[in-house]
Amino acid sequence: MSTRTELPITPVGIAACCSPLTAGVIDDASAAQLARVFKALGDPTRVRLISLIAAAEGAEACICELTDPVGLSQPTVSHHMRLLVQAGLVTREQRGKWAYYRLVGQTFNALREAVTVGIDVV
Amino acid sequence: MSTRTELPITPVGIAACCSPLTAGVIDDASAAQLARVFKALGDPTRVRLISLIAAAEGAEACICELTDPVGLSQPTVSHHMRLLVQAGLVTREQRGKWAYYRLVGQTFNALREAVTVGIDVV
Repeated sequence: MSTRTELPITPVGIAACCSPLTAGVIDDASAAQLARVFKALGDPTRVRLISLIAAAEGAEACICELTDPVGLSQPTVSHHMRLLVQAGLVTREQRGKWAYYRLVGQTFNALREAVTVGIDVV
Repeated sequence: MSTRTELPITPVGIAACCSPLTAGVIDDASAAQLARVFKALGDPTRVRLISLIAAAEGAEACICELTDPVGLSQPTVSHHMRLLVQAGLVTREQRGKWAYYRLVGQTFNALREAVTVGIDVV
């Protein structure tokens, strides 16, 4: 039996916004939510972990496949993964001994909208 | 006379990558560069400042227009703006008494590519 655990603490309300970052002045709550997601990505190891999951077969990665490539212990990688799950960027599924991770497309789509600049910039 | 000052410390090498975050395993240098830009955005005030500049007339904002909306002192806003400039997200131009800021479209485009998920995710 498989169960989804550690669902994002932050509901993915971020995805309800359209271009919140550059299509008008953002409200405080949306700014806080968006900043939280960006902050979760503001670490080289977490950027690499996201990239590893995206590149994994079926776009799903076991914690057991993530430790070696980033050269960190499993508890440290689990800590990073927990932050990514809490930010709504990744889901975690426990299957037997191992936790498996997937990217949350909805959150990445929302981020994509957020950083889409539809204006005449430098 | 107007001069561009405080150009990004980080050359916008980030823009040279294609979908670095989700289109294969990212290298260490790109991960660090990308994480640095995400980290600069990982603060609600800085998210609001970016949004204010994007929404300003001509997509350019004077420091004098940014302090009131975020409710912070000019030195504090200048500090946040410096971090955004250093991350390559914003350019700063001093004109007389005031500094004027613009978004760097190249960096936002690169971020957009980075968070574009072209895979079958949740």
